[in-house]
Amino acid sequence: MGVTVAVDANGADLGPAEVAAGAAIAAALGVSVRIFGPAEQIGEVADGVVVVDAPFSIAKHADPARAARSSPEASIIQAARCVAEGEADALVSAGATGATLAAGLFEIRRARGIYRPALATPVPIPGSPVTLLDVGANVEVRSEHLVQFAYMGAALATTVLGQQRPRVALLSNGSEASRGTALVIEAGEALAAGSQDSFEFVGNIEGNDIAAGAADVIVTDGFTGNVALKLMEGISQAVVGGIRDAATSTPRAKLGGALLRPALREFRDSIDPEGPGGAYLLGLRQLAVVSHGRFTRYGFSQAILLAARAVSGDLVGQTYAALESSGALRRKAGDQGATPSGAAANFPPDDSRGRP
Amino acid sequence: MGVTVAVDANGADLGPAEVAAGAAIAAALGVSVRIFGPAEQIGEVADGVVVVDAPFSIAKHADPARAARSSPEASIIQAARCVAEGEADALVSAGATGATLAAGLFEIRRARGIYRPALATPVPIPGSPVTLLDVGANVEVRSEHLVQFAYMGAALATTVLGQQRPRVALLSNGSEASRGTALVIEAGEALAAGSQDSFEFVGNIEGNDIAAGAADVIVTDGFTGNVALKLMEGISQAVVGGIRDAATSTPRAKLGGALLRPALREFRDSIDPEGPGGAYLLGLRQLAVVSHGRFTRYGFSQAILLAARAVSGDLVGQTYAALESSGALRRKAGDQGATPSGAAANFPPDDSRGRP
Repeated sequence: MGVTVAVDANGADLGPAEVAAGAAIAAALGVSVRIFGPAEQIGEVADGVVVVDAPFSIAKHADPARAARSSPEASIIQAARCVAEGEADALVSAGATGATLAAGLFEIRRARGIYRPALATPVPIPGSPVTLLDVGANVEVRSEHLVQFAYMGAALATTVLGQQRPRVALLSNGSEASRGTALVIEAGEALAAGSQDSFEFVGNIEGNDIAAGAADVIVTDGFTGNVALKLMEGISQAVVGGIRDAATSTPRAKLGGALLRPALREFRDSIDPEGPGGAYLLGLRQLAVVSHGRFTRYGFSQAILLAARAVSGDLVGQTYAALESSGALRRKAGDQGATPSGAAANFPPDDSRGRP
Repeated sequence: MGVTVAVDANGADLGPAEVAAGAAIAAALGVSVRIFGPAEQIGEVADGVVVVDAPFSIAKHADPARAARSSPEASIIQAARCVAEGEADALVSAGATGATLAAGLFEIRRARGIYRPALATPVPIPGSPVTLLDVGANVEVRSEHLVQFAYMGAALATTVLGQQRPRVALLSNGSEASRGTALVIEAGEALAAGSQDSFEFVGNIEGNDIAAGAADVIVTDGFTGNVALKLMEGISQAVVGGIRDAATSTPRAKLGGALLRPALREFRDSIDPEGPGGAYLLGLRQLAVVSHGRFTRYGFSQAILLAARAVSGDLVGQTYAALESSGALRRKAGDQGATPSGAAANFPPDDSRGRP
């Protein structure tokens, strides 16, 4: 594909060598990888993978924005700078959402006309992929932010997941357009009135509609989205755990569980969070993907491959074109549209120069 | 127990006779029931159950507040008035949250010092009961509302569920006190500083902590709570459905599923929404319980029995005492603390006379 991905190997629970093993899988499938981390822990790497020795990590730092500012040598900063300088096309981080958000904002910077970057993630439920955003980059938002999230999420669904004209919905406490906070109602009116060549706006959906596949892309603020994502992870685990407990409670149940296990494998794969590779940080001038620190090499390889697919599909350009044709781009360069409590609001305003 | 419960039989999917069958179970256990609905559909009733013929229903009305105002003959209004006039001690509705909220606010009215009633519900996950509130009565709230919800939820957990000094948490996007919206952070500060004789405030919890049993009572705004509750219902169904599909996919899996079924019964019972009887409408001068319209007689009997238990335990008085000793009661009679978009804000301010 001729795509190069910059990967921060710090932050993975299984260590930088596991990330390098994921990079080797992606490289074998044609993606060039530059991996940033402690060279001595990464060790020998596969063809197509270049190691940049960057042992210093801010992945576990309590104040990632401050750490990013004061630690230009940190692996995530070096990896992000590599993308900003055009030596790589996308950024993949092996954990640490805050540090990746900080590095992305400082080095790669916001795309032109974007108010706020947003974190998008496929929800861990069986069935077709459903993308939820924002899952935590912006705790408090304005309605025009939600509108942009809709376009960014739709572009991701089309470019990376191959969903043509995805169905986009707002998450609310009722399906009628009159239900929801003032914020949700205002965003719904704007989305219903706007141009929707790139997606179909299907209005409000409720919590139970997420698992029912009522929409391909679900838009919400970063507070609600973060609560919802973690809730889904927790409930899935609790239900699967409850069934596992039942399947070991009696000899008869144990036999039943053993017979059922092969059939459950496909189901378990469908809710495996490693398949999608992690959360996508949208709204920067290039894509960043944040994997879970607890992933194995499979998850890291997926993150790199999906980032490369986003580059090949020109996710950033597609997002910009859809926003431009709809009139949903930020109007004035100085308007960040920020209330001060969102995570992204801790970062300086973008200067809106350079690439879209 | 000498407790009388007023029951609206309209709104049940299985019809008023199913509600009457639930009332018969509760009556056999010593609760007096006055049941409001179409007498000819209710038919013969058990000892301890009195029928009040009230065929007119506003359970499915699109604008329940307006319907409640203009339909004094509606069964839910008559049942609520019966409670307000002291002929019954608590209200149970067989569905229709909006109509019950309207009838409760108009007839039973807010308890003294309460800003807003809130809907509390046990979450449908295995393990000890976890109470979540608000799940939809107030779409937008202020921090002092969240503080009151904490006291109301704790009083419910103690009085109805028998949890002594329950652990109370705020739902947020991070466990640190600094994480969350401005609203959540402010409520957390107030709860941490306030008197907590009646519960233990454990700070913020995240979505995945709900299923992990990190708190007994979880406080949030009605938007987030409604999304979370419906999400849990949807995810539980999707996971159980996915496992059921797997258990019918091959002959071997079918045999496994059949062997496993008895062991799964206890697990299924633990996530059965009928056990807790429905959602509790807290903050009125008497308790109201809103069952699901799709419940069977078992769920309706549970709703009546749990309402009676709340009366015996003096839930309303306990809530008032805890709020009074903590200083979290509304200060001025005229201060409704309302932004105009919450459901409860469509109702007139309470005059703060009469019983607590």
